[in-house]
Amino acid sequence: MKCRVCRGPAVIDLPRHNANFCGEHLVKLCRDQVAKAIADHAMLVPGERVLVAVSGGKDSLAVWDLLLHLGYQADGLYLGLGIGGYSDESAVVARAFAGARGLRLREISLRDEYGFDVPTAAVATRRVPCSSCGLSKRHLFDAAALEGGYEVVATGHNLDDEAAVLFGNTLRWDLDYLARQLPALPARDGFPRKVKPLVRLTERETAAYCLVRGIDYLVEECPMAAGNQHLGYKAALNAIEERSPGTKAAYYLGFLDRMAPLLDGRSVAARDGLGSCACCGAPTTADVCAFCRLAERAGAHEPVPVELVRRGRARR
Amino acid sequence: MKCRVCRGPAVIDLPRHNANFCGEHLVKLCRDQVAKAIADHAMLVPGERVLVAVSGGKDSLAVWDLLLHLGYQADGLYLGLGIGGYSDESAVVARAFAGARGLRLREISLRDEYGFDVPTAAVATRRVPCSSCGLSKRHLFDAAALEGGYEVVATGHNLDDEAAVLFGNTLRWDLDYLARQLPALPARDGFPRKVKPLVRLTERETAAYCLVRGIDYLVEECPMAAGNQHLGYKAALNAIEERSPGTKAAYYLGFLDRMAPLLDGRSVAARDGLGSCACCGAPTTADVCAFCRLAERAGAHEPVPVELVRRGRARR
Repeated sequence: MKCRVCRGPAVIDLPRHNANFCGEHLVKLCRDQVAKAIADHAMLVPGERVLVAVSGGKDSLAVWDLLLHLGYQADGLYLGLGIGGYSDESAVVARAFAGARGLRLREISLRDEYGFDVPTAAVATRRVPCSSCGLSKRHLFDAAALEGGYEVVATGHNLDDEAAVLFGNTLRWDLDYLARQLPALPARDGFPRKVKPLVRLTERETAAYCLVRGIDYLVEECPMAAGNQHLGYKAALNAIEERSPGTKAAYYLGFLDRMAPLLDGRSVAARDGLGSCACCGAPTTADVCAFCRLAERAGAHEPVPVELVRRGRARR
Repeated sequence: MKCRVCRGPAVIDLPRHNANFCGEHLVKLCRDQVAKAIADHAMLVPGERVLVAVSGGKDSLAVWDLLLHLGYQADGLYLGLGIGGYSDESAVVARAFAGARGLRLREISLRDEYGFDVPTAAVATRRVPCSSCGLSKRHLFDAAALEGGYEVVATGHNLDDEAAVLFGNTLRWDLDYLARQLPALPARDGFPRKVKPLVRLTERETAAYCLVRGIDYLVEECPMAAGNQHLGYKAALNAIEERSPGTKAAYYLGFLDRMAPLLDGRSVAARDGLGSCACCGAPTTADVCAFCRLAERAGAHEPVPVELVRRGRARR
């Protein structure tokens, strides 16, 4: 197995590119794909200050590393979600990455600063843990960016993530969600710009990037996500990708090319009538924003250990 | 397991309806769903003459039976595709259904009347057999309808079929194909109206309908289709449906409700500039229509037995 570029020994085969790559040219491929995504979707201004959402997994550490290499002033923000040993270990990994490279990593603990954690929120709201988790992350990353003077938040969402979310939104033909499923969302209504520089890379590619670059990441997946619908959508697309390599990229990039323009304008209309949260000041359509309502509800609940929240759904 | 309607012994559970049904009420459900599809999409005029595309499988015999019950003058057309024993058996089953009920069934043999068959066409064109097969069926059903004075052709496409085709078109974001993926296509440009009365029924439901109604159908699936992409899409959607019953119906019906209106007008534009085939007179954008070109190419080829065309792709 030889590298397509230099004919040296390859470390990975990428069926969707119908080629193999050595470590050096895999890293170059990843950098080129990220640079292309940033340019195609006007994600960042050269040298811009970026707040990176860091979980300690392969994608968030890869995007941080890639943005630094491309010359952005990228700082990290780690959220302690209180998901038992998984959160403990992910914090260690994120701190080690930042420490070894002299990077700024801000940390926020849901339990210490807001009086609840994700397992407790799942039980208190009687919804899947991913629901409270996503809500908390969006809210706290937005708030921290504005507070820290960052105009943009970068997340590690990769092609597999985006294709799976697209599949879910398409199964429901949720046109408002589809309209907002873009690799770059401009700042507005008090929310910072959001960008996803890894949308042209698969999770297999970001994992290989970390291995080649010597980045230690937390391999374990979130135990709360096990069995969730998103993973079911990923599995369905993976089965099709295996038969027809390149289908997933064509699906997501084709959506951006041909479908997203049909929905242009719809995402703006969906955000009419925003006020400020009476509790925290964040933009919201209600008197009190969804995060503050969650914090109030979950904070009043007895803490729940992670073991009692299973398979993507809270026990009733 | 009791029938939701009459509390008698049920013969089938339908998770997407969260209910079980006895034979009598399953038949009623199917008739109601077909009547609703016909009404919702203005498929047919009461008592209209309809040409039913009959393969001998559960769906084509079910749609024929259902249309007769609903008072339409439905005649059948069977195409002999020359797919070995599968075609021989399907012809026997189709003739038996028509014969036992005193129905009109016209038969056309590709080999006898056009000098080729589907396996030979697959090898001659070096494409998957489903490609030549679909082209031949569309052409011959259209031509037979116009010749026989039928304004409309009904096919047995069910919800599983339509959802799988929708999935394929969505994976490619082929907006022109999506625009035409409707349960009823009006007559125009010399093509008859096409309707799919079974779009609200799954293949499991049409199979159960046939069992309850005592309709003998060919259980065997087409050997040429084994391993094709369409079946891969069906499998992916079935895995999701099993986790979340009703997803498939919501996907297809949500497409019709919310997405199809966005594409309105596109299907008309795609058919501009039609002339008549120099060979057969059918509407076409070329001098000679695709079917006549296929017949010329495949007719010049040595006949190929079905065993030499395998797993959805012609041997090279």
